[in-house]
Amino acid sequence: MIDAKEYLKKMSAELDGPMKSYIGDEEPKVLMDAAKQYPFAGGKRMRPAMAVACCKAVGGDGSKAVPLAVAIEYIHNFTLIHDDIMDGDEKRRGMPTIHVGYGEPTAILAGDALFAKAYQIIANLDVPAENMRDVLKYVAQAVWDLARGQQMDVNNEGQIVTEEVYLETIKLKTSVLFAAAAAGGAIVGGANPREVKAINEYAIELGLGFQMYDDYLGIAGDSSKTGKSVGNDIRKGKCTCMVTNTIANLKDPELLKEFKSILGNMDATDEQCARAKSIMESVGAIDYNLNLAKQKVENAIAKIQFLPESEEKEFMIALARYAIDRDV
Amino acid sequence: MIDAKEYLKKMSAELDGPMKSYIGDEEPKVLMDAAKQYPFAGGKRMRPAMAVACCKAVGGDGSKAVPLAVAIEYIHNFTLIHDDIMDGDEKRRGMPTIHVGYGEPTAILAGDALFAKAYQIIANLDVPAENMRDVLKYVAQAVWDLARGQQMDVNNEGQIVTEEVYLETIKLKTSVLFAAAAAGGAIVGGANPREVKAINEYAIELGLGFQMYDDYLGIAGDSSKTGKSVGNDIRKGKCTCMVTNTIANLKDPELLKEFKSILGNMDATDEQCARAKSIMESVGAIDYNLNLAKQKVENAIAKIQFLPESEEKEFMIALARYAIDRDV
Repeated sequence: MIDAKEYLKKMSAELDGPMKSYIGDEEPKVLMDAAKQYPFAGGKRMRPAMAVACCKAVGGDGSKAVPLAVAIEYIHNFTLIHDDIMDGDEKRRGMPTIHVGYGEPTAILAGDALFAKAYQIIANLDVPAENMRDVLKYVAQAVWDLARGQQMDVNNEGQIVTEEVYLETIKLKTSVLFAAAAAGGAIVGGANPREVKAINEYAIELGLGFQMYDDYLGIAGDSSKTGKSVGNDIRKGKCTCMVTNTIANLKDPELLKEFKSILGNMDATDEQCARAKSIMESVGAIDYNLNLAKQKVENAIAKIQFLPESEEKEFMIALARYAIDRDV
Repeated sequence: MIDAKEYLKKMSAELDGPMKSYIGDEEPKVLMDAAKQYPFAGGKRMRPAMAVACCKAVGGDGSKAVPLAVAIEYIHNFTLIHDDIMDGDEKRRGMPTIHVGYGEPTAILAGDALFAKAYQIIANLDVPAENMRDVLKYVAQAVWDLARGQQMDVNNEGQIVTEEVYLETIKLKTSVLFAAAAAGGAIVGGANPREVKAINEYAIELGLGFQMYDDYLGIAGDSSKTGKSVGNDIRKGKCTCMVTNTIANLKDPELLKEFKSILGNMDATDEQCARAKSIMESVGAIDYNLNLAKQKVENAIAKIQFLPESEEKEFMIALARYAIDRDV
């Protein structure tokens, strides 16, 4: 059985060169430096690895998906830069965020530039123009949806929404870019529309599981590994499945009142955050979230059973399981 | 002879429907409203008009260039939204800017969303995929360059740069999107590479003239028409050809010192700004700027002499002249 983490590490190393090859030493230097920081800094690179694996899993030449993999990661990095501004986050991967390091105007422009570069790369994909057009449709739709999802996330903060709204939000905020990577990779690999559709659905489900597990790590993860201070999501009133489920199932009005008073309270103490977590646990909301995430991942895996056996198919399955079994 | 302003007005009206047709009533409403504000509000629409005219001027079906025209205008609007944030501008076209009306997170996302939508539209252009690919290359390169140009503009503010640096900045900041509109329209119209190149150069030169005249309006325009308070560019220390020329030609050290003390001084009085303007006039810098702008426009017109006579060619020539002969 493939170890997704090891495989990812290997692919991330292989992608290092390409990831650095599309942004050179043009002027102005400050913009190039700002644009380079995230893509050049490594990271899990799940999305690009997925693009290459899906290309190979349908029998394609993986090297042709490498530029697409880079483009998808640039888009991911562009959204991180802009999200960091919106969220007022000051650190990412142990370094100052772009707006902290370079100022907000340059951060906005660095995001825009990475986004533009992604399309330059896609325009030059070494595939028939019709296939490039199909890739472009998936990617452009994904970024449109990403903006919608991020806006929903902003809107949801501090609000009590339904599980349905939560799932729609994370689908747009997280799944669609995984899906563009996976479907795009499959298109580059020459998959037929039915295969592309199934692989797209695989990545949508995987992305849901991934985000639900991410939310779980935000509440219960080891902050020395995740880099997120525990309690942060509770203080921000971040809308998660654990919150929607707690609100829906907490029958005791006193407890509900207490829970709501902690949620979204930026001045909540660590003790209060721990209390909110234990209230979530008491109604089974944390388990509910993990089980739902697991179900999404199993859905994802079911979607790609049609693929012929290959190392890449194995990786795609392992990656789906890894999405909900990681410490960072 | 065609009246560019009237022709623009007619084309702008024709483009009104298409401009509104690509952003519907998806969720979240606040993001859609923010994204719609600029493209739905009208404006000169020089870039989209240019896209359609260039398509027809090479013998193409203008209706096929309409979606591209919309995409280019969305990109222009996306850059306006982000630039307004960077520049801290509070009004545009008499309305609050997007970040003032909707907050900064939504403004950043509205820009990103318009950018994404532009690519969705381009992916669906009703032209052979190879031509769509060529259009995409022009447009993606333009947005990459736009980000570079805007960063240079940020860097130049309050600095004394050479005329060469100034021209490179406005080429990236302004000309490249005109060029993507023009070259893209020509490609959609079925032009050959040599024709596309010439039309691209036409728009580059036109854009330079346009921006130089824009700078002139910022100093000498009727603020009740331009909507820009006179003196603003001087107070911001905006780098223009008039400034670079004044610095290069002002021999009197006392005058030079005085000029530099006003430039970039946010507290400069109206009298001081008028004084700075008269210093520019005294060395002929304002005339120099206008003459150079005129020369660029004549260069632009020379580039498209090869086109067969048509109403659209006439409009392209009239538009170039209009770029340096307008009050807003």
